[in-house]
Amino acid sequence: MTRTVFYTATTLDGYIADPSDSLDWLLRQPQEENGAGDYATFIAGVGAVVMGATTYEWVMRHEKGVWGYEVPAFVLTHRELEPPTSTTHGGPADVRFRQDDITALADEMRESAGDRDLWVVGGGDLAGQFADHGLLDEILTSIAPVVLGAGRPLLPRRLDLELLEVGRNGAFVVARHRVLGPLTEDRATEAATAAATESAPGAQRGSEV
Amino acid sequence: MTRTVFYTATTLDGYIADPSDSLDWLLRQPQEENGAGDYATFIAGVGAVVMGATTYEWVMRHEKGVWGYEVPAFVLTHRELEPPTSTTHGGPADVRFRQDDITALADEMRESAGDRDLWVVGGGDLAGQFADHGLLDEILTSIAPVVLGAGRPLLPRRLDLELLEVGRNGAFVVARHRVLGPLTEDRATEAATAAATESAPGAQRGSEV
Repeated sequence: MTRTVFYTATTLDGYIADPSDSLDWLLRQPQEENGAGDYATFIAGVGAVVMGATTYEWVMRHEKGVWGYEVPAFVLTHRELEPPTSTTHGGPADVRFRQDDITALADEMRESAGDRDLWVVGGGDLAGQFADHGLLDEILTSIAPVVLGAGRPLLPRRLDLELLEVGRNGAFVVARHRVLGPLTEDRATEAATAAATESAPGAQRGSEV
Repeated sequence: MTRTVFYTATTLDGYIADPSDSLDWLLRQPQEENGAGDYATFIAGVGAVVMGATTYEWVMRHEKGVWGYEVPAFVLTHRELEPPTSTTHGGPADVRFRQDDITALADEMRESAGDRDLWVVGGGDLAGQFADHGLLDEILTSIAPVVLGAGRPLLPRRLDLELLEVGRNGAFVVARHRVLGPLTEDRATEAATAAATESAPGAQRGSEV
């Protein structure tokens, strides 16, 4: 059963990058290769990845244009972006630029991934868009021992989660959560809004909080 | 040896309250009474508490004016606030309103606490003020299985931490971190700024990033 997983590092205060998109605070942290939430174990179960344009550009800059993913990679963007010119594995880079139909994108990713998982690489708003469509199953966070006070938000939505696993890897707290859906407090509001709308025929359903 | 500890619940994305200061998302989470980071064990080691005006008003409203702390409680405020009129323990409420000299406040708290710890109850900026003065030793967070995307920030500063302990209590990830000081990346900047200032006699030392 394919799961869609937002696997990411974050600060203790919920930032995945600093305000200038720097990850210096992250890349200097010690991590074990075979510990909880380690990359090798995670990526072995992944059949396709998806990222936003900012994340794609960060990866390209950081890896100097040499593409490291072996599975199909989807980049959600409205802009024209340059594909990678070489790969670490020698073969051609499978990078597919797509626009914003998340449901169609998830379908195409599942077809590409077989029975393996889909990895939402980042950023936080892309993970949020998957959650908006009920298409985000899990969040696997490696929480670095840092607070930044500002930066790129982990997941700018109001959601209920369920803690599945907690562990430690080097300097990191590693936590795996299931995504349950909209926050309990907002579901009550949504139900009330829906009821009010139904009891007022002809009323336009407004945007919900 | 007295430690100053910021003991708080937070969401996975680093908010200690929602934008309207609600903790509904927190108060419905299951927690074990004798698990990691549990309140009874923590409070038994605390000799004095400190909180900001917003936190004080929340506690007063939530507890309907009945004061629950038995140790001296310091409230940092520039406003005139009403003291509690009754307590859960029957004795008088020891609530001391102070203004913003954090160093003098910490000294007075340590005198009151004996060899027990000081608890920074909240909010995040007050914990940040203690950190600014090198007076925050540890952060003990209970991370609720929720993201909010907006709200009152956990600790609006740039700090390096060290992970001391990680565990689970009911729905919560519990993490204990030591506060090491300013973020490594900012220390380099500060050193460079200091060096530049020293090499330019007569130059006013500007505010640092």
